[in-house]
Amino acid sequence: MAASNTGAPPERTIFDRILAREIPATIVHETPAVLAFRDIQPQAKVHVLVIPKKRARSFAEFESWSDGEIGAFFAGVNATTRVLGLTEGGYRIVLNTGRNGCQSVDYVHAHILGGEQLQGGFGR
Amino acid sequence: MAASNTGAPPERTIFDRILAREIPATIVHETPAVLAFRDIQPQAKVHVLVIPKKRARSFAEFESWSDGEIGAFFAGVNATTRVLGLTEGGYRIVLNTGRNGCQSVDYVHAHILGGEQLQGGFGR
Repeated sequence: MAASNTGAPPERTIFDRILAREIPATIVHETPAVLAFRDIQPQAKVHVLVIPKKRARSFAEFESWSDGEIGAFFAGVNATTRVLGLTEGGYRIVLNTGRNGCQSVDYVHAHILGGEQLQGGFGR
Repeated sequence: MAASNTGAPPERTIFDRILAREIPATIVHETPAVLAFRDIQPQAKVHVLVIPKKRARSFAEFESWSDGEIGAFFAGVNATTRVLGLTEGGYRIVLNTGRNGCQSVDYVHAHILGGEQLQGGFGR
């Protein structure tokens, strides 16, 4: 079971601390719903992470969110792609969830990758 | 510019035809907002595509959708992961947009990949 379902407070991750401005990040966009900042180990010429300000451990926890809350998060992802100038060239959005998805931080985050021709395949 | 901005009707894709039940697909889930079916060339043990019933050429076109509409699409993706039994093991969600993202069909679709340990990386 997810720790958030045990009644214990969730462990604070690096993304909680970026959101609280306790540790620095290169912020590229912010809306009332999201914060977007550059990945410190970029896997493409442009590699930005978008997190919702309302905490969720993973995409799976969106089960308990309203459509409006989920939509505000992905609208923030969409707005970030435009701020980054990626609309015309194209981009990839990836959300890794849990063990099989290689989720690396227990705070839901969307990867935006672009700025160059990406390859096919899905990291099998 | 996207064809949808020229006033011309969008070209009907294979996903329009699956949605209209004109060609068969292995449907795994359906909500008022989405249709989910198996990819015919699976890139993982579980590989399902989720499309919104309201047409959009790509994730970029969500710019003109309401938060509620965007949220209903991703809530449908979330529900599909649960129908597929992927919650505990984990999974990856990928949306490819435009040329650099290797988008293959001009109808927005989310890939759900799981059922096995995926690798890191993002198809650079």
